[in-house]
Amino acid sequence: MKIGILISGRGSNMVALIDAIKSGEIPDSDVAVVISDKADAPGLEKARERGVETIVIERRGRPREEHDAEIIAELQKRNVELVCLAGYMRLLSKGFIRSFENRIVNIHPSLLPAFPGLDAQRQAIDYGVKISGCSVHFVDEGLDSGAIILQRAVEVKDDDTGETLSARILEHEHGAYVEAVRRIATGHLQISGRKTTFGITDE
Amino acid sequence: MKIGILISGRGSNMVALIDAIKSGEIPDSDVAVVISDKADAPGLEKARERGVETIVIERRGRPREEHDAEIIAELQKRNVELVCLAGYMRLLSKGFIRSFENRIVNIHPSLLPAFPGLDAQRQAIDYGVKISGCSVHFVDEGLDSGAIILQRAVEVKDDDTGETLSARILEHEHGAYVEAVRRIATGHLQISGRKTTFGITDE
Repeated sequence: MKIGILISGRGSNMVALIDAIKSGEIPDSDVAVVISDKADAPGLEKARERGVETIVIERRGRPREEHDAEIIAELQKRNVELVCLAGYMRLLSKGFIRSFENRIVNIHPSLLPAFPGLDAQRQAIDYGVKISGCSVHFVDEGLDSGAIILQRAVEVKDDDTGETLSARILEHEHGAYVEAVRRIATGHLQISGRKTTFGITDE
Repeated sequence: MKIGILISGRGSNMVALIDAIKSGEIPDSDVAVVISDKADAPGLEKARERGVETIVIERRGRPREEHDAEIIAELQKRNVELVCLAGYMRLLSKGFIRSFENRIVNIHPSLLPAFPGLDAQRQAIDYGVKISGCSVHFVDEGLDSGAIILQRAVEVKDDDTGETLSARILEHEHGAYVEAVRRIATGHLQISGRKTTFGITDE
């Protein structure tokens, strides 16, 4: 399975995916390209260190559709079958989502549908929840609203701040994202409407 | 601590609370009365079997405030300090909530703020979440929107229906509700705005 990863920043989930592919944990897959919309994204160097091709495609004030069309062209040129968002800080256009229907995944630092959008961990702290977590989900045209592939629960402690909770959730994000992509790569994930099921239990 | 419990149905969480008080798990407390808005609520018999006074106060088409005023009077007559909703199927009036500010608790079968309102387990199945759970929370004037005391996460399985998920969550509800009331009864729960904290960790 050829994978393209989109980043805007440090790309810690990108690193987790690349390393899991290299180790064989995600089988029969290859990261064809890492694309960043920011020239100074620290994740770019980490991708290059791991021998992965990187491209910077900045928005430069262009309409979203135009920016996305350039990204889509680069992904299609490399026969990318699955697009993984890893801290990519832009909403995708409808054209992008239609070009890769049910083939774009994202990880979000909350138990969706709770706390979609920016600063999910801070939202969780402000609401006062005792359990939050992370969700790997397909990307649709809504905000963090696509079908959920898997979720991991993370305890919120009484003295947590947005920062300490973010760090604790991040520890779970890497394993969750790798497991979700592994399920897709091995062909065992079925999608029916909003429901995803996994043919083989991992217990 | 004198506790009043409001039910509309089988009262399984009511039974858990009464039994935990009898066993001393919730210390220095007493269920002063169980009030049902339904004369045929099966929980009434279970309360009587356990030696707890029961009262039926039906709505009978009266305005909510009037119905609630009668319930409040019975609770106040018995010096109830904490009101526990246990499958009580009516929204409380503002007057009720103001009469027992931060002294009404409820348990809800989802990880709030996800899936408030009726049929939370069915909502969770329809959304396609992989983790749901239950939340014990203070009751405010919104719908399942008060400060959260504690939450427990419960896995949603691929073949779950609303019924099987309800049954799995219910197993966790009893322990969660008992633990939340124990924290209040022992005076270790602090509330500040939407945040509750527990002075002593239970680990």
